[in-house]
Amino acid sequence: MAGGSGTRFWPKSRQALPKQFLNILGDKSMLQMTMTRLLPLTGKQNITIVGNKEHASLLAQQVKGIADARLVLEPVGRNTAACIATVAFLIAREDPEGILVILPADHWITDLKGFTETLAQAARAAEETGGIVTIGIPPTFPATGYGYIRADTAPGAAKVEAFVEKPDLETAKGYLASGNYFWNSGIFVCRASAMLSEIEAHLPGLYVSLKALSDCETEEAATAFIDRVYPSLPAVSIDFGVMEKTDRAYLVKAGFGWSDVGSWDALYALSEGDTRGNVTKGPVLLEDCSGCFMDSGGRLLAGVGLKDIIVVDTRDAVLVAPRGRSQDVRDIVQRLRDGKREDVL
Amino acid sequence: MAGGSGTRFWPKSRQALPKQFLNILGDKSMLQMTMTRLLPLTGKQNITIVGNKEHASLLAQQVKGIADARLVLEPVGRNTAACIATVAFLIAREDPEGILVILPADHWITDLKGFTETLAQAARAAEETGGIVTIGIPPTFPATGYGYIRADTAPGAAKVEAFVEKPDLETAKGYLASGNYFWNSGIFVCRASAMLSEIEAHLPGLYVSLKALSDCETEEAATAFIDRVYPSLPAVSIDFGVMEKTDRAYLVKAGFGWSDVGSWDALYALSEGDTRGNVTKGPVLLEDCSGCFMDSGGRLLAGVGLKDIIVVDTRDAVLVAPRGRSQDVRDIVQRLRDGKREDVL
Repeated sequence: MAGGSGTRFWPKSRQALPKQFLNILGDKSMLQMTMTRLLPLTGKQNITIVGNKEHASLLAQQVKGIADARLVLEPVGRNTAACIATVAFLIAREDPEGILVILPADHWITDLKGFTETLAQAARAAEETGGIVTIGIPPTFPATGYGYIRADTAPGAAKVEAFVEKPDLETAKGYLASGNYFWNSGIFVCRASAMLSEIEAHLPGLYVSLKALSDCETEEAATAFIDRVYPSLPAVSIDFGVMEKTDRAYLVKAGFGWSDVGSWDALYALSEGDTRGNVTKGPVLLEDCSGCFMDSGGRLLAGVGLKDIIVVDTRDAVLVAPRGRSQDVRDIVQRLRDGKREDVL
Repeated sequence: MAGGSGTRFWPKSRQALPKQFLNILGDKSMLQMTMTRLLPLTGKQNITIVGNKEHASLLAQQVKGIADARLVLEPVGRNTAACIATVAFLIAREDPEGILVILPADHWITDLKGFTETLAQAARAAEETGGIVTIGIPPTFPATGYGYIRADTAPGAAKVEAFVEKPDLETAKGYLASGNYFWNSGIFVCRASAMLSEIEAHLPGLYVSLKALSDCETEEAATAFIDRVYPSLPAVSIDFGVMEKTDRAYLVKAGFGWSDVGSWDALYALSEGDTRGNVTKGPVLLEDCSGCFMDSGGRLLAGVGLKDIIVVDTRDAVLVAPRGRSQDVRDIVQRLRDGKREDVL
């Protein structure tokens, strides 16, 4: 799933260049890192990327040389349920019992071996249970920015007891202490047929709208169908539309490190700083600064006497915010939209 | 006097474009504002500007249309005593008893009428006493960044009792309370002959080195002489070299508002902010910010949740510092010099 708009990484992420296409955590983009990470499990042939039609050439360019991925281009974004249903129908044409590993293209993951093993375990659980297996992340701090999943803590696949909304800090502390709550990674593993039958049960309108995809005999026909039907689809998340309702949800605990890298703050936390906790990219000169994140787009960035400040410099826009406030970058993006500053969006 | 290098306004001020040439406080540069301010007193014909040869074309360009000023170009900077001695010799050739009003080109002054009256009063005092009259600024807060002059507080010109160095905060508070201390504005008014005899008495080497200027019959000869002799002149301030030693120093209290605009902090203090105390220039978007100074060079500057932060954005460099630390910009400039980053100096 590579259709996100990633406004929280403004000014580096733009409408034309969302987070999944940015090299914010290394030499490769988040999308390229995600594909590379899957290769041991899927091989080069079995990757399907759903993205926005607007990013078609960017997608093609970033995929090249990494995988022979199929691209599914959405004419408009319609949240994750439509995206997942579309791919499930496309895969089911070829192999209804084929295992789907559904995951966002812009997450950060450590420990490739643990990742591969966890997904293999989830695939076995998906085959054995015939349900939808989520990957639950054992929480390491009382995060208030993630949704949680309550499930049994026994080893192996556990029945999901409940999906719960992003909690406040007190509630999150309780979740962390209980050991029965896991962060919702947005990664799902299931048979194509299982996903389709759950969508049929819980989002019947979406199911009916997309069902004719099964009958498209050529890629061209499928593309034309998607272009035609997509604008009318409901924009619903798979969590809200299916996972919170189905009684066939299972959870496998992640054996790897994970972050959704949802903000400049999260990126700072994942980056290695100098002895004073400063993370810098490009030409940066700091005098008596600590805990800062300074990302230069080429210009010299000079900081004096700063504590815990984020500066992101690009060709046409500069963001300055204290650490802890980078979620509010969305407000800036909204005001730019309202102000018709398309040039910097 | 327009020969300063103004490193404290980096990244806007550069070696090739020091503070006196910048429009940091309005539509005109500091130099242009200084000239304009003097016109009621001097007319267009009687202004001499001493600047650095490196800035010759910039000086000519900025003077144009404001005054028919004489330009004296220093091949190298040699502090204020050399600068003032040179002009005193040049003026004395034409009119030894002519009154010099010597002042920095990069200061901020309010109340043109008060300014003109104060200088007229100082000129009368210079004629009556035959001494050097300084303009003392009645302090409005316990400044530690200015030198002070101790003098009688009676109206009219007072005998200067002492020039004192920049004090620490406690001492400055004492000065402020006493009423006998004034900020040293660096503005001096005197007959050309008086300045020359004081320089002869207290800086005889400088006097002897420059004396032959009196004999230069053409501008070309004077320029050639200055080019030749300047590198060998001592670099001494007029305060240290003459004013602290002479017993012919007088003080007239300023009847106008004044600042030397010595830092981004000082500029912030002089600028009118919005209701939350933010001062912005150019395209700036602030979300929940207060007390900030944001100067965009054209790019969009976006601030989120900032308090008392200075951001100065230019084509090739960006400065970020908390208010109160802008003096330390000099450290950045020094490190750029050490690092041979001439491109951004």
